[in-house]
Amino acid sequence: MAQVEQWSIFELSLDGPQEGNPFIDVRFGARFVHGHRVVEVDGFYDGQGVYRVRFMPDRLGTWRYVTASDRAGLDGVEGELVCGAPGPGNHGPVQVSDTYHFRYADGTPYVPIGTTCYAWTHQGDALEEQTLETLGTAPFNKMRMCVFPKHYVFNQNEPPYHAFERTASGEWDDTRFNPAFFQHLEQRIGELRELGIEADLILFHPYDRWGYATMGPETDDRYLRYLIARVAAYRNVWWSLANEYDLMRSKRMADWDRFFRIVQESDPSQHLRSIHNCRTFYDHGKPWVSHCSIQRHDLDQVIEWRELYRKPVVVDECGYEGDIERRWGNLTPQEMVNRFWEGTARGGYVGHGETYLHPEDVLWWSKGGVLRGQSPARIGFLRQIVEEGPSRPVEPLHEDWKIACVGVEGEYYLCYLGGDRQSARWTIDLPEDVPFTIEVIDTWEMTRTRVEGTYSGRCEIPLPGKPSIALRICKAHEDDRYR
Amino acid sequence: MAQVEQWSIFELSLDGPQEGNPFIDVRFGARFVHGHRVVEVDGFYDGQGVYRVRFMPDRLGTWRYVTASDRAGLDGVEGELVCGAPGPGNHGPVQVSDTYHFRYADGTPYVPIGTTCYAWTHQGDALEEQTLETLGTAPFNKMRMCVFPKHYVFNQNEPPYHAFERTASGEWDDTRFNPAFFQHLEQRIGELRELGIEADLILFHPYDRWGYATMGPETDDRYLRYLIARVAAYRNVWWSLANEYDLMRSKRMADWDRFFRIVQESDPSQHLRSIHNCRTFYDHGKPWVSHCSIQRHDLDQVIEWRELYRKPVVVDECGYEGDIERRWGNLTPQEMVNRFWEGTARGGYVGHGETYLHPEDVLWWSKGGVLRGQSPARIGFLRQIVEEGPSRPVEPLHEDWKIACVGVEGEYYLCYLGGDRQSARWTIDLPEDVPFTIEVIDTWEMTRTRVEGTYSGRCEIPLPGKPSIALRICKAHEDDRYR
Repeated sequence: MAQVEQWSIFELSLDGPQEGNPFIDVRFGARFVHGHRVVEVDGFYDGQGVYRVRFMPDRLGTWRYVTASDRAGLDGVEGELVCGAPGPGNHGPVQVSDTYHFRYADGTPYVPIGTTCYAWTHQGDALEEQTLETLGTAPFNKMRMCVFPKHYVFNQNEPPYHAFERTASGEWDDTRFNPAFFQHLEQRIGELRELGIEADLILFHPYDRWGYATMGPETDDRYLRYLIARVAAYRNVWWSLANEYDLMRSKRMADWDRFFRIVQESDPSQHLRSIHNCRTFYDHGKPWVSHCSIQRHDLDQVIEWRELYRKPVVVDECGYEGDIERRWGNLTPQEMVNRFWEGTARGGYVGHGETYLHPEDVLWWSKGGVLRGQSPARIGFLRQIVEEGPSRPVEPLHEDWKIACVGVEGEYYLCYLGGDRQSARWTIDLPEDVPFTIEVIDTWEMTRTRVEGTYSGRCEIPLPGKPSIALRICKAHEDDRYR
Repeated sequence: MAQVEQWSIFELSLDGPQEGNPFIDVRFGARFVHGHRVVEVDGFYDGQGVYRVRFMPDRLGTWRYVTASDRAGLDGVEGELVCGAPGPGNHGPVQVSDTYHFRYADGTPYVPIGTTCYAWTHQGDALEEQTLETLGTAPFNKMRMCVFPKHYVFNQNEPPYHAFERTASGEWDDTRFNPAFFQHLEQRIGELRELGIEADLILFHPYDRWGYATMGPETDDRYLRYLIARVAAYRNVWWSLANEYDLMRSKRMADWDRFFRIVQESDPSQHLRSIHNCRTFYDHGKPWVSHCSIQRHDLDQVIEWRELYRKPVVVDECGYEGDIERRWGNLTPQEMVNRFWEGTARGGYVGHGETYLHPEDVLWWSKGGVLRGQSPARIGFLRQIVEEGPSRPVEPLHEDWKIACVGVEGEYYLCYLGGDRQSARWTIDLPEDVPFTIEVIDTWEMTRTRVEGTYSGRCEIPLPGKPSIALRICKAHEDDRYR
């Protein structure tokens, strides 16, 4: 009997018909049963007569399954699998928690520190493996990445794989998927999973010369169901319906709503769902949206978006560190770091990207490769500080302090004074009668300096009088708990 | 016969009654006639039995006048004055020009480069003279300053003069002005005029412990008429109805509208009129508002405010260079300079202030003294570049270039790439077939580097890849005209 660890992939493969168009002609799936629970899972045709169904068991114990198909050899196949305890580093899929935050299914908090390599899986093995190597030591735990290849400035190369087969006449046949394309994508998603990185999979995007952006509703929907059947069992998958949905002229709002419905009803694991804007926000208040995925540079709005949508706010794109001649790709590293702190200290989550000119157009933001900027080290420093914080989620606090601040009242505060500020001191009103320790953080120099003594009530904190200073304030006797 | 240069002050003094309350009891004024033109001017009581009327002639030639009063000795006094050509440095009062700009009455363009010393005339002679000395070599040509003294953080000292007399019981008598208070103010306005600095006189403000902010409508109106009668003949006066009008709880919107009406109808010289917000804008579209006086930090909105109000946009307060523990007073000098360029390159005018901690609380922003910051030199550098520009006003241009840009199409462009940007090059589409020269400006280092050659059509401009870079692009053969 099959043994599968919790939140890993059980896969059943069966041989079936190859004639006709198995992608269209054959229905195949399975029903997984655990006690009173029944989970219906779509299967998929993987080429060469092989049919598969993948399942991510989320409960320990024995699951029974039985396949269903309109073809005799694929129908009614029964079996069992035993779901065992998760292995090291396997915390399950990420879910929304406490309205504005995330955690893994096992309860471990998850703080997204994302980066962006839109088309990294379309660059060939050498570069893709270099990207994975880079990610192995980078501070990021989420990757924004497109299913489809990208056609755009700095993105002119032809991808190694395409999602559809070609007909004899050389046209794409959008009724026949190319299994190699998806197998390759799955391999990369799996490798990210092994690195502890969530794959924020972008299902549609406007930067296209092959036709993926203009496939028509029937093909769109078939593609979505096929992709979901293939990759929903990867615990690190998130569904990002689009990058810059509002730039896709061939789609209307009803299309996006329908895509959400398809994703919601087809994904047995109910991974996170979001949609990313260029200029105009999708209504993140709609019930099928799990969290806000936002492109904006004004991170001081994070609190407003939280209050508006009552969901986690991920500013996936606030500009990128780089030197290209685009307003979205020429931030100084100081400003990239500043935006991370601005968003974080207002209760949001911020995403990274890097766009330095490269002789062969290998810009991290799209193709991956190596990181050359100065912000990732500082983002890692921020991640370390955030992860040292309380296990309870931090929320925006103390507007009266006139600085960006998140924390747990009475226990912990993480404050940020801003990237263009140089106050020589700052006065805040801490709770009375409880001693706090204060650490002055230089977010750029990555230094942490404990202010001597402990503080209660009104306290005037001496500051170095330079930009990009943060404060970490902890209830004194619990300070060690966060170390 | 009196000789007065154009836009200077003609003053007629007459002796009159001292008994009773001359500020209230006696009506006094004069009518000035030049050809078919008749200008009615209010006079004022200056104490010790002296009544004065002041007039700023704006036309060359002979003006006849006759006084009017309800007291015999002050009524029907006739005379003439001859208005002669203005002396060096006298360009007349500043007026609105070309919808979004300013010029002096003689047609000379005026580009406001303002600073702020709210209470500088309430600090005693030693400090006030030091302020004037500082202004003599500073780059500023406009001063925001309050008529009334200021009570606020860093502003606890008692002023040397008060605007009203005290009664025998020590209370203020708000029906009796203190001429010494106004004589002192006039002296300072006159000294600013000699330095070529416009006095942007703030008529009301909320930071008060003496009662000036809560005088009641009758006293408010009398104060306005008295002040206008005294100082409207100073050509460098601007009327700023309030600093942060929306923080003055004792005034309603109808009060502000009435104040505008009084200023408009009482000022024979029709000086500029504005009103400054804290959070909520007054409707600058109202007809009596000559230009927008704005407190906001987001200078990228300048174009929007221009389009909204169709008037000049002066962002008098966008934060101050300093290190105090206030969000409005802790900007790095780099950010102060950045905001000047951001606003300027979008067709607005930006104001300066400085708030460095001082052992005796002498912060430039309120008390004057000496400038210690690093932004004024850079603001002077900007002023020089702007004044070298075309005599025609520059307007926002070329949104398609994706950088802030003002200019005169086909002739001149001044562009700014931003304070947190580091592009290594920028491509713009200049007009074809006309050669342009390009200068790369480091706004912080104050360097100007001519890019070799001339440029037309699409051109890729190499940049130093650091923040705060501007571009000055001139039609090649006219380049010298702007030097």
